[in-house]
Order: sequence, then C-alpha cells, then structure tokens
Amino acid sequence: MANLTDIADLPPFDPWGEGVRARKVQGERVTLAVVELASGAVVPEHRHVHEQLGICIRGLVRVALDGEVRELGPGGTWRILSNRPHEVVAGADGAIVIDVFSPIRDDWAYQLLEPQPPAWPSQG
Amino acid sequence: MANLTDIADLPPFDPWGEGVRARKVQGERVTLAVVELASGAVVPEHRHVHEQLGICIRGLVRVALDGEVRELGPGGTWRILSNRPHEVVAGADGAIVIDVFSPIRDDWAYQLLEPQPPAWPSQG
Repeated sequence: MANLTDIADLPPFDPWGEGVRARKVQGERVTLAVVELASGAVVPEHRHVHEQLGICIRGLVRVALDGEVRELGPGGTWRILSNRPHEVVAGADGAIVIDVFSPIRDDWAYQLLEPQPPAWPSQG
Repeated sequence: MANLTDIADLPPFDPWGEGVRARKVQGERVTLAVVELASGAVVPEHRHVHEQLGICIRGLVRVALDGEVRELGPGGTWRILSNRPHEVVAGADGAIVIDVFSPIRDDWAYQLLEPQPPAWPSQG
C-alpha cells in the first residue's frame, strides 16, 4: 500500500449498503476511513471489538452512544471504546466523516466498487 | 473524557511551537488530533514508536516520508508506520490536518493553552 495517497485515488466500498460509501487507508495498527453518508443514511446500532474514534467533516450526523445522543456537525467527534454499541444517522444533506479504528479492520472484506470521484473533497 | 465532543470545546496545545496548534481526543488505543498549521509551519523530521495515519482537510502540506516527498491538499493522506522518519511543511495558506496515532500519545505532556476558537471549522 502506498504511504502518500489521495483518497480520490482509492476505490470505494459500501460497508452499510448503498447509502454509505467508504475509502480506507490501512496501517498495521490503525484503519482510517473517509465515509460518505447519503441523505438520511442509517448505520444501525452495532458494536465491534475495534475502538473507533471519528470526526464529522461536512454535513450532520446524529450519533447515539451509550445512551447519549448528539447531533454533530463539522468538528464534532466521537470516541467509541471497544464493544460499545453505537448508531449513526446522517442529516438531510448527508455527511462526510472520518472514522479510525484500532486494531485494523481486517474483518472488512467488502467488494471494491468501480473507481469514482469522492463526494469530498470537491474535484476541481 | 466525554465521548461526543465538538473540537471547538477542547483546549489547544502547541506540540511544535506556535505555528502548530492541536486539539485531541484520546481513546484507549488511538489519539485523534485536529492540527492547525500556520503559513509555512515546519514540523522537522522526527520519528516515534506510534503509528501515525493522517489526512489533509484544508490547505496544503508537503510531506516527506521514507525518501518520498509529496504535496498533499484536501483528501491527501499519509501512512507512517512505527518509527519511520517524517517531516511536514505547511503551504503558504497554512493547513488543517487530522492525525491519528496508535498507541495513544501518552508522551504528550504539553501545557494546554487558553480556550480559543479553532481555525476549522469556521465558527458561525
């Protein structure tokens, strides 16, 4: 895997159905994913052993975590320790978020989709 | 530490002198930092045991890693495995980047600065 890469050059995959599109950079300890959520996209409550930290870059997400619910816009962050149940719902205009996981998501075995321009950053 | 936090509510610190300002969310396995680099700010070559993945959100950074040098704008990523020497220089308009580290940066013992609005996202 290249060490210096534009996410626009990475193939997307859809870990939660067609409303959620991700591209990832994989290290040995951390997976970093740029995730595009379509308007109203739902990532239903789930949990995983991987710790997950993340931040909203564009749009809005409603994050439910450990009984707390917050609507987060750009700069809003989440800190999901191992095995904590969490749910995400995108706002009406969708969202771009960055999620990072440790250990790496070697359980992700999604088929890679055709290369296509990412929703963020804008191409130009 | 709160689990759902706006980075605007976190105090900044300056791990590389006054041209570099960071705010962090700390997990148990990962540290996520939003880092503001002033125009031309330099993070001189260094290395650390922590794996470091990151992505440029705004502006430009020139990243040198393992003999490779690239100028990266929004969506540009880096993947710095443990103990790899790396250097970052911000472009003329500065940059906002997100860096994540594993294990956590419990070696960071910087004094926290007065709360102040972050350069990103724009306040409004």
